[in-house]
Parts: sequence; C-alpha cells; structure tokens
Amino acid sequence: MTQPFTHLFAGNNLNRFSILRSNKTFLAASLTSPYTRFIALRALDPLLKPSESPKRVEIAWLTSATVQGAIDNGAFVALLGVDEEEEVEEFQIEKTNGQSMAVKGRAYWAVDMTPTSQDKGVIERINKELEESHGAQYSPLRQKLSELPWSRDTAILAQARAIVDWNTRNQFCPGCGRKTVSEEAGYKRVCPRASKDQQKATASSVDPEPKGEAQAVDEQQQPACLSLSGVHNFQYPRTDPVVIVAIVHPTDPNKILLGRQSRFPPGWYTCIAGFMEGGETLEEACRREVWEEAGVKVGPVFYHSSQPWPFPNSIMLGCIGMATTEEIDLGDQELEDAKWFTREQVLGAISPYESSSKDTPKRDDIQLRIPPPYAIAHQLIKAWAERWKGYNLADAKM
Amino acid sequence: MTQPFTHLFAGNNLNRFSILRSNKTFLAASLTSPYTRFIALRALDPLLKPSESPKRVEIAWLTSATVQGAIDNGAFVALLGVDEEEEVEEFQIEKTNGQSMAVKGRAYWAVDMTPTSQDKGVIERINKELEESHGAQYSPLRQKLSELPWSRDTAILAQARAIVDWNTRNQFCPGCGRKTVSEEAGYKRVCPRASKDQQKATASSVDPEPKGEAQAVDEQQQPACLSLSGVHNFQYPRTDPVVIVAIVHPTDPNKILLGRQSRFPPGWYTCIAGFMEGGETLEEACRREVWEEAGVKVGPVFYHSSQPWPFPNSIMLGCIGMATTEEIDLGDQELEDAKWFTREQVLGAISPYESSSKDTPKRDDIQLRIPPPYAIAHQLIKAWAERWKGYNLADAKM
Repeated sequence: MTQPFTHLFAGNNLNRFSILRSNKTFLAASLTSPYTRFIALRALDPLLKPSESPKRVEIAWLTSATVQGAIDNGAFVALLGVDEEEEVEEFQIEKTNGQSMAVKGRAYWAVDMTPTSQDKGVIERINKELEESHGAQYSPLRQKLSELPWSRDTAILAQARAIVDWNTRNQFCPGCGRKTVSEEAGYKRVCPRASKDQQKATASSVDPEPKGEAQAVDEQQQPACLSLSGVHNFQYPRTDPVVIVAIVHPTDPNKILLGRQSRFPPGWYTCIAGFMEGGETLEEACRREVWEEAGVKVGPVFYHSSQPWPFPNSIMLGCIGMATTEEIDLGDQELEDAKWFTREQVLGAISPYESSSKDTPKRDDIQLRIPPPYAIAHQLIKAWAERWKGYNLADAKM
Repeated sequence: MTQPFTHLFAGNNLNRFSILRSNKTFLAASLTSPYTRFIALRALDPLLKPSESPKRVEIAWLTSATVQGAIDNGAFVALLGVDEEEEVEEFQIEKTNGQSMAVKGRAYWAVDMTPTSQDKGVIERINKELEESHGAQYSPLRQKLSELPWSRDTAILAQARAIVDWNTRNQFCPGCGRKTVSEEAGYKRVCPRASKDQQKATASSVDPEPKGEAQAVDEQQQPACLSLSGVHNFQYPRTDPVVIVAIVHPTDPNKILLGRQSRFPPGWYTCIAGFMEGGETLEEACRREVWEEAGVKVGPVFYHSSQPWPFPNSIMLGCIGMATTEEIDLGDQELEDAKWFTREQVLGAISPYESSSKDTPKRDDIQLRIPPPYAIAHQLIKAWAERWKGYNLADAKM
C-alpha cells in the first residue's frame, strides 16, 4: 500500500508520559489547570455532542472547572497524556534522578462520571447540567461508531474507555480478594496486603484518587499477598490480543473465506477472529481460529495492521492468511455459516459504503454484506479485494 | 527471508480443541487414559530430565498412573490439547448439536504439582519419587532456556506455564473479591455470585477439578457480580502483548539502536521492549516505548515475528522500526544506556553464539554482547544485521 494506514481508534497523538503518572506535582497541577481537558464516561458511555457535520458526533471535552466537584467527591480519574502540539502551558518536572524537565502542551484526563453511592448527588447534578444546558449526551459507543471522526479524539476515547473499564472491573485483588487501591494515575492497582517494605514503597507513589480506599492498616502483620511476589502482571491494565484474519483460497486467489454468526443481519459475513491463547504465536493463533471455526487449514500468514478495540480492552491484530485446504467444517459451531466469496462479490459488498446513497444497490440485490469501514475486518477484506496481487511467500512467518 | 521462522516456545502442534474443554466424557476419558501425557509444574518450575545430548534437558512427560494420586487429592489440571499426529487412541465425542465426531491422537494435560495444605502429603511423596527414582528435577525455567529444545515440547511447556500461572494468580474475583471456581478444563474462572439463571448455565459445564471450591449456595439471593454482566474478559486467561523493536538509524542504515538496563551483565545491550497499553496500535506502541526509553522518534514500523514468552503470560510482538531522529535521551531512566551500534559490532556480538567455543572471541575483546538466540531480540537484531537491505517503505503501517 502506498499510504500509511490508519483505523478508527488509531492515531492517538498524546504523549502518555508514563514517568508523570507518579509525579505528584504534575498530577496536582494538571488536574486543576484551566487548560486541561477531560473525557467523561458514564457506565463506559462517552459524553458526546453533535458535530458541525450532519449525522456526526464528537467528544464533548470538559474543563477542570466542570468536573472538579465530581473529582472532589471521589470520581475516578486517569491521566491520558499530554498533547505537545497544543503549547498552551508548561509544567516544570523534577525527575527521580534530580534532573528537571519541561513538559509543554495540554494535559488530557479521563473522568468516570458513573454515579456511585458516595458521590451520587454531585455527579448526577453535573451530568444533568451537561445534558440539559450543553446538548451533550452519554451514548453507548457501539451505536455511535459510524458517526465518530477517524481522528486522535476518538483514539483518545479508546484509551480512556480501556483504562476506566479496567479499573471498574478490577476493584479486588485476584490473588487474595482484598479491595485494591489505584496508583500511578490509574495505571496500577495495588493489593493492600503488602509487606511493610512494600507498603513503604507504595506510600511514596501518588494516588490521584482523593478518597481513601486503603484498608491496609490492620494487614501489616500478615504475609504479603502473592500479587506482590514475582512478576505481578495482574496489577497492571490488561490488553487482550485478538487475531482477525482474511483467508485466501488454496488454489484460486480470487476467492476469500468469510463467516457469519447467527446474530448477524441477513447476508452479513466477515473475517474470522478470536482471542490469542497462552503459548502461541500470532500466526499460530490465526491458524487455530480458522480451523476451529471453519475447519480450513492455513499455511503462511501475513500481518497487515492493528486496531485498538475498546470493547473492553482488545487489540485487534489483522492478518491475511493462505489456506491449504478448501473444505469447510463449522467445527465449534461458533459460526452459522462460512463460505468462499469471489472478488466480484466482495467488491459489490464494499461499494455501498463508498457510493453516495442513490448509487447504492437495493437491499435485495446485495448477495453479500460486510462490516463497515470502521471495522478492521472491512479494511482487511478491502486490502485483499483491491490490492492483493499475491504476497511474497518468502516473507511469511511461521 | 527464505525459511519460515520459528522461535523457542513457538511450534506448538497440539490441536487445542476448545470445544472439548466442556465435554465431560472426553475430559474424564482423557484424564485417565494410559496414552495421555502430563507436563508437571511445581511453583511454575517444570519437571525436566537430562536429554541424550550433552548439556541439554527435555520435558519429563508423566502418565496418568503417576499423577492420579495428585489429581485425586485436588491438584489443578488443565487440558492442553491433542497431538493428532500420534494416533494412539480415538475418542468418540458427542457435540452440543447432537452430531458426533471422532478425535484421534494423544491427549496432553498440565498438572500443578505444587504442594498445598490440603494435598501436601500425597504430592510431596510423588514429587520425591519422581526426583529420586527417575532423575527428573523441577527447575526454574529461566535458568534452563539455553538447554531446552526448540521443538513442540518446549512450546507445550509455554502453554502449560501460562495457563497454570493464570489460574494460580487469579483465585479471587476481581469484580467482588469472592473465591472463583475453575471451569472449561482450566480456561475460565467463574465468580460464584451468579444469578440463578447463570448458576444453572454454569452447572451444566464441567469442572475438571474434583474438589469443590464452590461456595455459591448461600449467595443465590444476592445480585449477580459485575463479572457476569457485559463482556467479562477477566474470567478468561490473560495474554499480555509486549512490543519489542530493533530501531534503524535515520540516515545510516548500517546502525541500530540498542539499550541496556543496569541489571544486565557488562557490555550487554538489547532491543527496546514494553507492554502495549489500551488504545494504541502495535506500531504506536513501538514508537511510544522507544521515545520513553531512549528519546528517539520512530517513523515506519515493520512487524517481523512473534514469540510466546511465558514469564508469565506474554506474547512478544517483534518489529523493526525506522528512526527519524538520532539524539538519545534516557527519558524515563528505565535504561542505563542506549547507543547506536554498527553492523560490524553487531555481527561480532552474534558470532560467539554461532562459533564453536575455540573460535569465540575472548571476553575482553567483545565490544558488545546481545541476548542468546532463544530470545526474539537476538533474532530481530540478526535479521537486521544479516539480511536487511532496506524495507519497502510503502509497506509500513501507521
């Protein structure tokens, strides 16, 4: 391809500055700065507002003044990063090695505006005001995918949703069941059942959540939780890798394998996808999924591109694979059907998304429907249909 | 490259047959079959035995007769899959749609031989026997990496370690803190705080752990845990995607950027690596990590290959990236040093691993040391050093 490729949810230009996640001075300054912008989520639904373009929406960015009351009442916040292209202010940062650095730009945070028992009144009042006076609305993300811009704003939303979701769903230590405490501006949750040394180290880091969840006081005499020994990956946000793959026919490169689940709209087919498992490569995961769902064996696999997919925390790893067998067997019954489609059928399925509405084929004439352009599946299918002239097999990885 | 590429921990040829994970008949039959083989872990250390080749080890495969006592006493087990190339037996499987299928091959399971309070005596006795009579030893995996075969046996070990580790570290529901129950032969852990309907559905699936951890009885009147609403990804094993990237100099393609941490041996440098975060593509994650650790800006990024890395549950996504700036700044202090190395220096660092010992340069003469061939970093560096003649920039993904 001649143009760099981007997907919906790609193109996040924030510098995440992970070193700032434990910098008390920066966190306090940027949380209250009038230049800082907040993305608000309620039960993971983002606050959106109508865009100037018809049938489009955009993020309703909030200021610290608007959300201060919610934060003061315990709303969860997470640092997203700094847009260095917006040189609105400068933060002087003292690094742990004693050196100082200047961070220029605009800070971005996520704020969870889901009412809870402790902060219900305040947060509900702010939400009501936002919806009534500003025309903004909390909307289920899946329903808005086709109305969102393919820009860094939507990519930042993906980041915000992933980090808020992970914190929401991981309130308790999976190692011992105790309530965990947020640290590092939303990027770590720590079990309070730490050893004294570990607690001491923990206390020196910064918790941007103003209200104490800590209950560690009476735990100090107990042995440390296993979450604090060895590699304790479960204290950090999870990102689930998913393989998604368009499969080319073993003898006719003008045919591609697509499948459908019973819940899909009529005629709708797409790429085969599934979560990676432990102990397999990207390419092995593609072969396993295609065999499990369609009974087709796959040889060489080519990575194409990836897409963050915040439902809730996936990274879609898009590939194109070469089948070595043709016969289809819906082995694990996850698919209702799978078929080999011709390039002509696929081009016919792409065209409604690219034509103005009057040129769109009538619904009855459509033999095949595929997902819209915001889905990486669409882009993989399109890449094959429009550009594929045969990969260099020597480049395939096993 | 002209040969398909494999890494240590790649090449797992088991058919994981995920549909069998909830098939009671298959699970019971394969757990007790004399043909089934078990990989044993104690505190995640695999049971290994000396290989016929000098200075090599191999997996000490166990039979159901050997581990039956441990399983009867509650040792955790997880189904790994079936090797269909070993046609030692045939299982007749009833599928959920009423159809039947024949599964031919040898079943493989993982068994956790870590003594716990309830099964201590039995498991300790079996372990002692294995070590004393059979010359097998539980060994820390990291210390044995250079002695393990690059074969499906070691790849199966990676799978076993990932799944046993995840079950060990996720005994409690992160949504509400209750003790979870293993399901689907080790590939799911369910919160007992389910609604009645959900408990009914749960009861029809199979738990290969014979001893009841369930404590759901008195919970039936409570509302369902949030782990059972929406996409409950935290009930499934996690696989953490890690980017690892060799960076080519912006103007001199004969130079590569490598970094070192203070804990490394003298002279040792390697590729920059780090965990992917929510809301970023593979390529964006590579750029972020290189900027965070070395202050170098990166443009086009090319995926090379991937390696399962069971420490504990990572998938290493190996890339080669093109720098757009040269100056190095050890921003987040994770690295002690980072440098541009020449192709000649890199070839000198590869040669000790490929020469017979008498040709190996003296330690004092080595200007640069890189990780051994079992690490994907070595393979990325080698790919650049030996074969890189300039990537097709048009193929780069943003």
